[in-house]
Amino acid sequence: MNACDLLISAPWMLPVAPQNIVLENHALAVRGSHIEALGPAAELQAQYQAQHTIHLPHHILMPGLINAHGHAAMSLLRGAGEDEPLEVWLNDTIWPMEARLMNADYVRLGTELAIAEMIRSGTTTFSDMYFYPEVVGQTCVDNGIRVQLAFPLIEFVNPWSKNVADALHKGLELFHHYRHENLVNVALGPHAAYSLSEHDMEHIGMYANELDIMVQIHLHETAAEVANAVAQTGQSWIYRLHEVGLLGPQLQAVHMTQISDAELSLIADSGTHVVHCPTSNLKLASGYCPVDKLHNADVNVAIGTDGAASNNRLDMFSEARLAALLAKHENANAAAGTAPNTVRMATLDGAKALGINDVTGSLEAGKAADFISINTQTLGLMPLYNPFATVVHGDAGQAVDNVFVNGQALLREGELTQLSLSDLTQRVQNWHAQNSA
Amino acid sequence: MNACDLLISAPWMLPVAPQNIVLENHALAVRGSHIEALGPAAELQAQYQAQHTIHLPHHILMPGLINAHGHAAMSLLRGAGEDEPLEVWLNDTIWPMEARLMNADYVRLGTELAIAEMIRSGTTTFSDMYFYPEVVGQTCVDNGIRVQLAFPLIEFVNPWSKNVADALHKGLELFHHYRHENLVNVALGPHAAYSLSEHDMEHIGMYANELDIMVQIHLHETAAEVANAVAQTGQSWIYRLHEVGLLGPQLQAVHMTQISDAELSLIADSGTHVVHCPTSNLKLASGYCPVDKLHNADVNVAIGTDGAASNNRLDMFSEARLAALLAKHENANAAAGTAPNTVRMATLDGAKALGINDVTGSLEAGKAADFISINTQTLGLMPLYNPFATVVHGDAGQAVDNVFVNGQALLREGELTQLSLSDLTQRVQNWHAQNSA
Repeated sequence: MNACDLLISAPWMLPVAPQNIVLENHALAVRGSHIEALGPAAELQAQYQAQHTIHLPHHILMPGLINAHGHAAMSLLRGAGEDEPLEVWLNDTIWPMEARLMNADYVRLGTELAIAEMIRSGTTTFSDMYFYPEVVGQTCVDNGIRVQLAFPLIEFVNPWSKNVADALHKGLELFHHYRHENLVNVALGPHAAYSLSEHDMEHIGMYANELDIMVQIHLHETAAEVANAVAQTGQSWIYRLHEVGLLGPQLQAVHMTQISDAELSLIADSGTHVVHCPTSNLKLASGYCPVDKLHNADVNVAIGTDGAASNNRLDMFSEARLAALLAKHENANAAAGTAPNTVRMATLDGAKALGINDVTGSLEAGKAADFISINTQTLGLMPLYNPFATVVHGDAGQAVDNVFVNGQALLREGELTQLSLSDLTQRVQNWHAQNSA
Repeated sequence: MNACDLLISAPWMLPVAPQNIVLENHALAVRGSHIEALGPAAELQAQYQAQHTIHLPHHILMPGLINAHGHAAMSLLRGAGEDEPLEVWLNDTIWPMEARLMNADYVRLGTELAIAEMIRSGTTTFSDMYFYPEVVGQTCVDNGIRVQLAFPLIEFVNPWSKNVADALHKGLELFHHYRHENLVNVALGPHAAYSLSEHDMEHIGMYANELDIMVQIHLHETAAEVANAVAQTGQSWIYRLHEVGLLGPQLQAVHMTQISDAELSLIADSGTHVVHCPTSNLKLASGYCPVDKLHNADVNVAIGTDGAASNNRLDMFSEARLAALLAKHENANAAAGTAPNTVRMATLDGAKALGINDVTGSLEAGKAADFISINTQTLGLMPLYNPFATVVHGDAGQAVDNVFVNGQALLREGELTQLSLSDLTQRVQNWHAQNSA
């Protein structure tokens, strides 16, 4: 008999790799932070002596979801400036609020609120682009969730950085600090091509190539952004990024609602990843990313919620569902945007985009034990004909009842293990009462 | 002091009429099945001696949502035939399954499952178009939920009716049976113009006008439907309905993804209502209803989930949110599809479409006490800047904790009062085990 810490079994398992497969009556053997083995429940029960055994009688086991783009602390700004156009919303609501509210306490509380919502709805990894990334990183380590910190590189003075050089200095310190922390990856987070000088972009391109570090950028979010680039520089930002050496497998291009055929070739040939944020793009009336076109060109596409200020939810199941619906709409074909492909985008393809698919994103022996369970005997999900349909189109976000990251339970039978929900709620109310007067 | 049965108060109330108003610290006085009064909580507490008093400390009170189109019992087919194109899905999956499974027990169980999901997510009225409408009606009365039974008129033989004449006979019996039942309205439910003969359409038009009865029909769901109509008859079905006298304030035209300018005039001038089913239309890749264009022409637009087989959820908050996102996208304007307008579509405009806006759809003295509460201290909703944004874009469907219809509590502190959820779950599992083998 081999020893393991946890043996967990369920009637259905979606390992994601190999894709489109439903495993029935399978189990995971977890040892420390890793998946030791995966196989038929009866076989694993015979092979392993487990410290803890959990049998989930009517559940789906699958990898935790990967939220590939967001600004976690903005959960405290959820619903502010509702129904405002993008420019007004940014210039008149969000940026003045951030200028007034920004400090380490705000970032910690907002990140905790976001983490609680994400864990509760089945997310085990998220990418964050926000000020005070060292606070975000510490909050994630404290709460046991996996994160990519795409530290913000932006020209203007803000409470975290005086300029891009200052931000790079602080961010690269963080990069070295977290080199050996399994839960945290640090990436460069240039805000957008339009908000950085040519010099800074070149500098960022240089660092990205020298340090072998991931880069996340808001790119081609709106038609106006592209038109302005063409007016200012004679070409779109995709060409500019290509020139400074930023296109490539280390780049995560977020939004990408506008892609010409020539730009598509640049993205595809360079191996650049795209992050689709369907709710945020529709909500700010920016169009949406043509995912099927990207998939046909073999571009890897992840899914992100963006910040709660432009979503307003951080429920990746809700986001994945909208991605599936829009793919069908984009193609005028109900057979597009299939549920298995959508599950893969929300898990393994997210891990690929973040450069951590050797660590997470699928249920495979040797990977981190980042997995969730969904109770299929929930209103809005039952009965079950097809587990992929259940998780993508049923109301799965509210049926998640167990969440594990690195083998640690962050949600057990629907209850958060690291955060007290009543305490968190009270702190959010107090903050809001003090800051909304 | 006046007497009332219930005095219920909360920090925020969205009465919907007058529209776009948030009332702070208001209460409802409920007497029997009706709203007796609405006013500042302190004033009503001084005026009324209440049998029961409920103060909800951090909640929004609003009218219950109105799901203006669906096929409730199809909740038992949720997720079957996933990712199939519309024609294949209907011809190869849904219709054969229905032919095999259809009987009164299936309809009752599926309707109960749908009712449980709808109550839990804040729906107090729904429209149903399905076989065995007498079973649906009885199930609704037993469970205390308000319903429009749009009994199905369809050429082909089915377990409920031999032909259209037979269906009309049975349905009109039901119409008379429920004449004095406040919870139930009976409407004609011609399936679609393409599935009925000219003779039958004329017959239905005649009955509609003579009996002053509402009519609900699937209309212009797909571009192919319109193209086929033009090929067969030289014009679209909207013109055909106009000729037989069916356009008008008694007609609820469901889907309407295809509308030419000339057809828009016919719809607007006749006072025809439109029911927008955004998820179902995207999921079956049929396009979507141009709501803003309809609103600009003063057409009343309600929202429906359609059946769970093509959604797969029956959560009207989720549906309302998608309607808001698509309105912004349709207009390339983030200021379109505002949250207050979306709330009105999901409540009062739904009641107007069903011809029951004198009874329900807003919080006003004299109307039925059909209302819900939303706990704003829920992950995915807090903090609250704007109650309209909270209910439309936050995850409000899972934050509903009290639901009243006709003054009767159907959900109290998150628990269903009329149905046992564990018993229902067991019966659904048993049915599924027997019928999916």
